[in-house]
Amino acid sequence: MDFLIDGLQYASWSEKIFKQMRKGNVDAVHVTITYHENFRETVLQIEKWNRFFEQFPDLIFQGRTAADIKVAKDTKRTAIFFGSQNPSCIEDDIGLVEILHTLGLRFMQLTYNNQSLLAAGCYEADDPGLTRMGREVVSEMNRVGLVVDMSHSAERSTLDAIEYSSRPIAITHANPSFWHSALRNKSSGVLKALGESNGMLGFSIYPHHLKNGSNCSIQDFCDMIAKTIDLMGEDNVGIGTDLCQDQPDSVVEWMRVGRWTKSIDYGEGSSHKPGFPDMPNWFGGNLDFSNISTGLKNTGMDASMVSKVMGVNWYNFFRNSFESKM
Amino acid sequence: MDFLIDGLQYASWSEKIFKQMRKGNVDAVHVTITYHENFRETVLQIEKWNRFFEQFPDLIFQGRTAADIKVAKDTKRTAIFFGSQNPSCIEDDIGLVEILHTLGLRFMQLTYNNQSLLAAGCYEADDPGLTRMGREVVSEMNRVGLVVDMSHSAERSTLDAIEYSSRPIAITHANPSFWHSALRNKSSGVLKALGESNGMLGFSIYPHHLKNGSNCSIQDFCDMIAKTIDLMGEDNVGIGTDLCQDQPDSVVEWMRVGRWTKSIDYGEGSSHKPGFPDMPNWFGGNLDFSNISTGLKNTGMDASMVSKVMGVNWYNFFRNSFESKM
Repeated sequence: MDFLIDGLQYASWSEKIFKQMRKGNVDAVHVTITYHENFRETVLQIEKWNRFFEQFPDLIFQGRTAADIKVAKDTKRTAIFFGSQNPSCIEDDIGLVEILHTLGLRFMQLTYNNQSLLAAGCYEADDPGLTRMGREVVSEMNRVGLVVDMSHSAERSTLDAIEYSSRPIAITHANPSFWHSALRNKSSGVLKALGESNGMLGFSIYPHHLKNGSNCSIQDFCDMIAKTIDLMGEDNVGIGTDLCQDQPDSVVEWMRVGRWTKSIDYGEGSSHKPGFPDMPNWFGGNLDFSNISTGLKNTGMDASMVSKVMGVNWYNFFRNSFESKM
Repeated sequence: MDFLIDGLQYASWSEKIFKQMRKGNVDAVHVTITYHENFRETVLQIEKWNRFFEQFPDLIFQGRTAADIKVAKDTKRTAIFFGSQNPSCIEDDIGLVEILHTLGLRFMQLTYNNQSLLAAGCYEADDPGLTRMGREVVSEMNRVGLVVDMSHSAERSTLDAIEYSSRPIAITHANPSFWHSALRNKSSGVLKALGESNGMLGFSIYPHHLKNGSNCSIQDFCDMIAKTIDLMGEDNVGIGTDLCQDQPDSVVEWMRVGRWTKSIDYGEGSSHKPGFPDMPNWFGGNLDFSNISTGLKNTGMDASMVSKVMGVNWYNFFRNSFESKM
């Protein structure tokens, strides 16, 4: 069975976008529900989603297991899987890992650009790897079925997580640095270790992660995917668009700055381009996934491999990742 | 199928007590996890239970639906259902009703002795009934499948809740005031309305709720049950022992005083008897339920009616109460 699954979106959610998901036949999306929010603030975000689920039951519902993706396909809806881009939602309390998993959290990044209690982010000058608490939390995440996501983490921390985690991890939204060198993109060493451990990479369409930024061509993007498959294997890659549709610039500031500095940090932007960059013309939202599958076919991939990239690989990964090992 | 179900316990939980539950063949218990705790503190209590579930999987597990009681019986374990004696766990946030239901909360009292944001407690001089927020929260509890428990509530508030709630409510631990007049016991008017609405009363063995207190005889207790069945019907009563095993007196103080006064309030006790009263000699804990079923037989009840009181009625109530009506 084919699936269309997006490994990461962070939009300003609305009925309009949920309808676009349906029109685009998107079966499942991993959505970011929290960045720098603490536990209570994260619960408020879940409450907001509960209102969406109550208001738009014909368009979306909360996904908890891979089986929900089949339900979504059968009932022509989109299954929404929760994720956090930062471990601030568990504060300093390992017991919150299971609590948040019970509330539906399925992905958690160990870091967001900076050093966290668990690991180092990709913008730190030094990377001491997984911390003491980091190792404890990874074990607990493995136990309950919460995926370790290292999209914004530094190199050594990421390699540590791949090695230490007893379950495959994910980099839900990033690209290879061999294609476009950026602090957020990943070295071939990391990607090889990720593939060998049966982990997943989701290819990002956030312009700062693309060669030529907003002007990146669909064919260049798809050729990069084909090359990454040569490095990682055809079962270990998917899409993770990092779509930030309809968000005001104030949100990119919250993502980058949170409460950790009184100054402005431009992250992947700059003082000249502080806000969200324009998306490439071939991907503006959930209606445009067919441009990617067409682009993949044009690289010479067969239909089965295209299906794997567009969702089957994520489906198999979800199937092995979310159930607890109690 | 017969079940042994206790409609309320609040013990100082330990492996010893979980083993007593098994030895006493207790299939399910509604346990109090929180009194005056706010949301974050309540989550800490759930975390504590998660550690119990991880540590003693052969004795206990978390119950979420009535089907879990059959699982408990089949696997010779006890299903633990969470409850709160006060709505302080939802603070002033109606969204926390669904959040706590997702975390497993299945009962919530609208008040604990005092006026709350939702209704009046049984120790208040005046009872304005369900508040504006109270009506909203009852509707939301009805929707998600969280039982309204009015054990510690005042008369008019209780009648309001019975009338306003679209699902039957419970008084998990109290006795009729026709038998023993106490602020915590319930009038015949309340009990009749409760029975007619298909709600449940759990008979309490907390000595302050018993005629002759700690010296109450088992036969007196069981005769009272038979009389209450005449008033309410045989399908609407069960046991709710209010067992507070192994708790230090500091806990009875937290129950009574919380953070709402700087003075000492003795609740159902007095300055001469400030702590936990002695349990009657026929019920010291989970090993002693057979004394109650024997006592019920001695009143002349047939086996089927005894089974209903000892658990079948709670099972049927759980079956109709915990699933959401989304």
